[in-house]
Amino acid sequence: MNELKIVIIGGGSSYTPEIIEGFIKRKDELPVKEIVLVDIEEGKEKLNIVGALAKRMCEKANLDIRISLTLDRREALSDTDFVVTQFRVGGLDARARDERFPLKYNVLGQETVGPGGFAKALRTIPVILDISRDMKELCPNAWLINFTNPSGIITEAVLKYTNIKCIGLCNVPIHMKMDVVSMLDVSSKDVFIEYVGLNHLVWGRNVWYKGINVTDRVIEKLKDGAELTMKNISDLKWPKKFLDALGMIPCPYHRYYYMTDRLLKEEKDAAKTIGTRAEQVKKIEASLFEKYKDKNLDVKPPELEKRGGAYYSDAAVSLISSIYNDKKDIHTINVKNNGTIKGIPDDSVVEVNCLVDKRGATPLSLTRPVEEKVLGLIHSVKFYEISTIEAGVHGNTNQAIMALANNPLVPSVDIAIKLFEDLCSLNKGYLPQFNK
Amino acid sequence: MNELKIVIIGGGSSYTPEIIEGFIKRKDELPVKEIVLVDIEEGKEKLNIVGALAKRMCEKANLDIRISLTLDRREALSDTDFVVTQFRVGGLDARARDERFPLKYNVLGQETVGPGGFAKALRTIPVILDISRDMKELCPNAWLINFTNPSGIITEAVLKYTNIKCIGLCNVPIHMKMDVVSMLDVSSKDVFIEYVGLNHLVWGRNVWYKGINVTDRVIEKLKDGAELTMKNISDLKWPKKFLDALGMIPCPYHRYYYMTDRLLKEEKDAAKTIGTRAEQVKKIEASLFEKYKDKNLDVKPPELEKRGGAYYSDAAVSLISSIYNDKKDIHTINVKNNGTIKGIPDDSVVEVNCLVDKRGATPLSLTRPVEEKVLGLIHSVKFYEISTIEAGVHGNTNQAIMALANNPLVPSVDIAIKLFEDLCSLNKGYLPQFNK
Amino acid sequence: MNELKIVIIGGGSSYTPEIIEGFIKRKDELPVKEIVLVDIEEGKEKLNIVGALAKRMCEKANLDIRISLTLDRREALSDTDFVVTQFRVGGLDARARDERFPLKYNVLGQETVGPGGFAKALRTIPVILDISRDMKELCPNAWLINFTNPSGIITEAVLKYTNIKCIGLCNVPIHMKMDVVSMLDVSSKDVFIEYVGLNHLVWGRNVWYKGINVTDRVIEKLKDGAELTMKNISDLKWPKKFLDALGMIPCPYHRYYYMTDRLLKEEKDAAKTIGTRAEQVKKIEASLFEKYKDKNLDVKPPELEKRGGAYYSDAAVSLISSIYNDKKDIHTINVKNNGTIKGIPDDSVVEVNCLVDKRGATPLSLTRPVEEKVLGLIHSVKFYEISTIEAGVHGNTNQAIMALANNPLVPSVDIAIKLFEDLCSLNKGYLPQFNK
Amino acid sequence: MNELKIVIIGGGSSYTPEIIEGFIKRKDELPVKEIVLVDIEEGKEKLNIVGALAKRMCEKANLDIRISLTLDRREALSDTDFVVTQFRVGGLDARARDERFPLKYNVLGQETVGPGGFAKALRTIPVILDISRDMKELCPNAWLINFTNPSGIITEAVLKYTNIKCIGLCNVPIHMKMDVVSMLDVSSKDVFIEYVGLNHLVWGRNVWYKGINVTDRVIEKLKDGAELTMKNISDLKWPKKFLDALGMIPCPYHRYYYMTDRLLKEEKDAAKTIGTRAEQVKKIEASLFEKYKDKNLDVKPPELEKRGGAYYSDAAVSLISSIYNDKKDIHTINVKNNGTIKGIPDDSVVEVNCLVDKRGATPLSLTRPVEEKVLGLIHSVKFYEISTIEAGVHGNTNQAIMALANNPLVPSVDIAIKLFEDLCSLNKGYLPQFNK
Repeated sequence: MNELKIVIIGGGSSYTPEIIEGFIKRKDELPVKEIVLVDIEEGKEKLNIVGALAKRMCEKANLDIRISLTLDRREALSDTDFVVTQFRVGGLDARARDERFPLKYNVLGQETVGPGGFAKALRTIPVILDISRDMKELCPNAWLINFTNPSGIITEAVLKYTNIKCIGLCNVPIHMKMDVVSMLDVSSKDVFIEYVGLNHLVWGRNVWYKGINVTDRVIEKLKDGAELTMKNISDLKWPKKFLDALGMIPCPYHRYYYMTDRLLKEEKDAAKTIGTRAEQVKKIEASLFEKYKDKNLDVKPPELEKRGGAYYSDAAVSLISSIYNDKKDIHTINVKNNGTIKGIPDDSVVEVNCLVDKRGATPLSLTRPVEEKVLGLIHSVKFYEISTIEAGVHGNTNQAIMALANNPLVPSVDIAIKLFEDLCSLNKGYLPQFNK
Repeated sequence: MNELKIVIIGGGSSYTPEIIEGFIKRKDELPVKEIVLVDIEEGKEKLNIVGALAKRMCEKANLDIRISLTLDRREALSDTDFVVTQFRVGGLDARARDERFPLKYNVLGQETVGPGGFAKALRTIPVILDISRDMKELCPNAWLINFTNPSGIITEAVLKYTNIKCIGLCNVPIHMKMDVVSMLDVSSKDVFIEYVGLNHLVWGRNVWYKGINVTDRVIEKLKDGAELTMKNISDLKWPKKFLDALGMIPCPYHRYYYMTDRLLKEEKDAAKTIGTRAEQVKKIEASLFEKYKDKNLDVKPPELEKRGGAYYSDAAVSLISSIYNDKKDIHTINVKNNGTIKGIPDDSVVEVNCLVDKRGATPLSLTRPVEEKVLGLIHSVKFYEISTIEAGVHGNTNQAIMALANNPLVPSVDIAIKLFEDLCSLNKGYLPQFNK
Repeated sequence: MNELKIVIIGGGSSYTPEIIEGFIKRKDELPVKEIVLVDIEEGKEKLNIVGALAKRMCEKANLDIRISLTLDRREALSDTDFVVTQFRVGGLDARARDERFPLKYNVLGQETVGPGGFAKALRTIPVILDISRDMKELCPNAWLINFTNPSGIITEAVLKYTNIKCIGLCNVPIHMKMDVVSMLDVSSKDVFIEYVGLNHLVWGRNVWYKGINVTDRVIEKLKDGAELTMKNISDLKWPKKFLDALGMIPCPYHRYYYMTDRLLKEEKDAAKTIGTRAEQVKKIEASLFEKYKDKNLDVKPPELEKRGGAYYSDAAVSLISSIYNDKKDIHTINVKNNGTIKGIPDDSVVEVNCLVDKRGATPLSLTRPVEEKVLGLIHSVKFYEISTIEAGVHGNTNQAIMALANNPLVPSVDIAIKLFEDLCSLNKGYLPQFNK
Repeated sequence: MNELKIVIIGGGSSYTPEIIEGFIKRKDELPVKEIVLVDIEEGKEKLNIVGALAKRMCEKANLDIRISLTLDRREALSDTDFVVTQFRVGGLDARARDERFPLKYNVLGQETVGPGGFAKALRTIPVILDISRDMKELCPNAWLINFTNPSGIITEAVLKYTNIKCIGLCNVPIHMKMDVVSMLDVSSKDVFIEYVGLNHLVWGRNVWYKGINVTDRVIEKLKDGAELTMKNISDLKWPKKFLDALGMIPCPYHRYYYMTDRLLKEEKDAAKTIGTRAEQVKKIEASLFEKYKDKNLDVKPPELEKRGGAYYSDAAVSLISSIYNDKKDIHTINVKNNGTIKGIPDDSVVEVNCLVDKRGATPLSLTRPVEEKVLGLIHSVKFYEISTIEAGVHGNTNQAIMALANNPLVPSVDIAIKLFEDLCSLNKGYLPQFNK
């Protein structure tokens, strides 16, 4: 007896076939009766294309799941069990602006870290709080699985300012694990990584293969040039001395903090030639949607991998299944700290290993306190995030300036002030909280 | 009955007349029988010059204090009551190198913050630990009043790795207070500032005039351009929006973190023209020592103020007096955190208001937890400092690289590695711990 | 120009001449223009007697202080500067009941600790919150100096549930100090004690004479039988082995926890013969008020000392003076913990040394963490207090039962339940919060 | 290929057939090649009897496990994988003394809590540290699974004073779970309990049935008289009002703290009539060993259940299997706190839910901070335990007196001192640390 209703906000995204495939793969453990793809007016066309593909995929898989498409979010939310948020306020155009506007100050532009991620957070917070309010009214017991970036900040805003049950998700930890699995050439089920940090700032502190600590072996592989990155980040190799000094596995996004100069140069070059990542993605997406329109296509097309977002379905659907099936298995997700990392407030969100079951996520305590050599960066970014949330929720200009001034990628308060002025004028219409 | 014996290590410094004046001013409360000026072979000439001046100063003040000069530190330490450290390993030449070597990577060179301060810490730690070992043997009950920079790091090294009673001192807090007093045009005894932070990273959270909170008034003065700086730091004005956002009084050294770009430009210009600060100071010192040689000079010459170090005697001698006289008054000094600032280890050193009496320094607890808008920077610098101490004490290259990588002024791990290589070759002979 | 207005709630108390004397002694530093003695209808007669004496005392001292008497609390509070609370809900009759009702379960009856103190807390909390609400409206900037017992609990209730500036006061710390001064036969100004604990559960961790640690000498004196107690507590001598093991100075009230059996026996004997302490005090008070009526009496009569409450004026008036005069001297008072004692919530009240000035009280941090050998009792009593406050504010029966069950003097949950039933029926009319 | 070597210290215990049965039941997941039963000279006869039974059990189960018997502990430990400690220093005679000696002071005598448990801890600590030292030398990678009571204290002593990997075990949590399962009449695999507390002081904060919180239902069952106890503790019913106030599931041992008076009376009666628990157990054991001698007996006899210790094999062998098989399932065990319960030192042992795998035990963080209504008791007992360990390891009389004075079951310091004197003379020969 199928019973689960899933709502995907930002349902018209090119990623949707990935998550649909996830539900198909887990059909035996997740009795989904309906998946509602929600989008906004501007995304209607893409919603229709991807919705039709989703239907063909379910049909091909011989699955009795109803795929609904709607622009009416409140109607969709009614009595749902899980809400997955993968929307992007302002679309790829806004992302492209996020990536470009800091460059003129010689500051990195990126969609989730630095001033770009800050702009995205400010645009997203009012919308996610709206969604949470709707959920409170229409499906108060539903789980919100947030995939919208910056995922840690958005999740913290929800957990601090609403009562909605929310878990923040990111495919970085699973991506790192799969890269490690591939380096070691072993089966993923035998590998366990102790993760600790924040979203897009997570370290693999130790890697265990069949219960044996193989961290050093992984570090040697990295020193030999093993790949550890994601589609949207250049696979710049880590200095060997740094890997030795670090003694743990950095995440791909650490490059923004630890190799700022090289990535900035790369970004500036790209901006002048092939375009920023968003501008490249727009082309990939255009071609993807052409593929999606093909009425003969009834599976996730392999080209989607290029888009990024690999393992998204594993991250999201397996999390949903662990909750629904009371599995008590381990996921690396964004949850309230509650003492897990010392020096970070209890109600702030961290990305750590959690036991997941019907009750939600319970962080595993750490095997030892976080090393001082990484605490500085963690705290620094976390206190930036806290100011960002305060600024984003309350439309507080002072907090916004302090947030940017504290961001490790912003070199001075003068530039912080200018960045904030620029992003305000670039995001007119998306920052209602600052225009009260 | 005079009874106190004071040892000043680095006694040949141009600052010595300042501290001698301090003892003269407090002659009624501090029964000093002997001040021993200790220096090393290379400083012998300066020691003799400044020692002779010190004697003339005491004579002129009609004071029965014996001024002794020696190159034998151990002899000096025997049965002393207070040891004041104001030495500089490698002298101004080493400082000049500290100021120059980061510039080629577009990184700030400064004697106490950034890679320059890091180099100075590595040079100083072995020497201060040697002094502490001697004290343990020769004057185990003496107080070590450390003025050698980076004062917070050096003090933390002593407190973590020895049992010596040590307080770290800096003239920044008193300098800030005197600037505030001057802005408000009031008497200094009516002004009280709640300080919180680290050495050279201390904030005046609130200013009270006769018990009334006048912080906003001080911020308005700063926005109107009131001076708040020190001889060795350009009085770059703070952006008004930033002061509003910060809501507290930054210390002069905050400019290195908050106005990095402007100060870097200034430093690079100076390096090409008038020379770095150390190079300028060398000239000032040369002219000062010419003055000191004048047998008719028997007071602290006014030119010393230019050198920097104003209020040094107030900071040091009044601290000694509070201890000796069991005064229970308040000093802003560097002591073990012991829970004062959340998120900083108990055994790390912070710069906060303390009650001082014969028992030593007891931090006042904070009126409210430190604001998140400054915690990021505090934690970030503190964890850099912790790694620096580990590197400096144990000669650990990995810790050294992580320390530099975590310093907010160092833009990438690649540069951190290069900076460390450069400073090692520039400081040959001064870093025995790395050449074991 | 006299300017201060002081309101004393419970002004008809026999203690009032003590505090009046305090104001007289400090007339040069405290420009009091008016002291309003407030009481309730039932206390009118005593108010008139003691009020007349207060007037005569001021007159004799040639002091221009207006003494006003009123039953209208709100009128009194208008525009006042300091409010001192020394009232007793239910009077000595209620206290006598508090002292008797636990005895039948072989449980100690006492006015501030155990079930008796619990009953007193429940009676007092609604009244103190009422007063605080009035203050919020009528004198929002006034300081509330709370002397009403159990002082720590009452102060914590005010600080948790109102915005009133409140400091809790008790004469135990000063009493201990004066006993130590007397043991050592020295001047009180040369003695400093590091206190730590809770109200009526405070330890003198270390005693310093002229900056020298003389704790061991004081312990030897105690082992030799030196007196350390208060009028209302038998001077039962501490076992020598226990003093050695404790290594610090217990407060007189510690006997209730550490010598429960001996005090219980004593109380039960007294209850059958000379009466409980309240019953004895009633007689002392009757004779005191006879004295007070004497129109020739114009100073505090020496007989008041017998009543207890010695050093009350020192504790209260000198605290008021330190605030008013921005003195920055040290008082041992009840304030929010804010990290001072580990393991106790930040917003719970502890009794520790504080710097006091116009801004209020700032706890001194501890010289070392509280010893584990006393933490068990501190935490145990504090969590009892926290439940008591919750019960008392919200009229929550479950919290009341848990509070009593957790009180170290209550031997079982069965007895806790019975005690609560008994005290409810004995305090009808005084526990409105449980009769909503 | 069988590979595991298991050493059971105290192998002659009547419980041994229970753990042997555990290994037999898990033969498919645990490839045990040898189980060495170790005992001391005095236990030789019992060792031979129970060893012979163990061999018959393995034979009957057709299992290729070698059962070895030895009095040479060091020989046994060589290259072992798991060491299980179930020894009892001084045997049942010492336990009987522990149960009797406090009674004369009207204090509970019990083998694990109160002065009896304290005496047992002092006897056991020197022996467990000896075993740990041997392990360090002979099997440094082995796991020590400690079952010897007081299990929390003994485990904390090992974890604080050695580097041995040690987990403390107790059958109370699983016993509680099985009682709850039986109340709810459901399958044990569908029930999950969040446990929090200390050994023999653990609360079931919440009970979940198939992911649904059914705590209230369990409390109702308890109010209706459902059984929740163990063989050695009277099933005294909890007052209904107390259960409502508590809102969680107390463990059977909580009765010693919450129903002290009733249990004391019961114990005193028993001591005069049927004998203390140890005296009763001696009879049960005698009859058990008679059974064990029967050459036809080749399974665990059902009479063993009466002895207590039910679910022991589930607790111990399933824990070993989770480690060996890297299972990542959840056990309620005694491990270092590491921030799990606020206010308890990081290096103190708590009893909480842990994920167990080849790396050992990782505590799950709590779903919310521990309620203040139980923190008082937890902290109080924990600080007693900490003093007990210090006393037991260092033979420190002062710490011993403070430990007893802080034990919630000891009513005064006078009695604490007498209890310590009595237990010293009763345990001559077993307390070498106090006779140095």
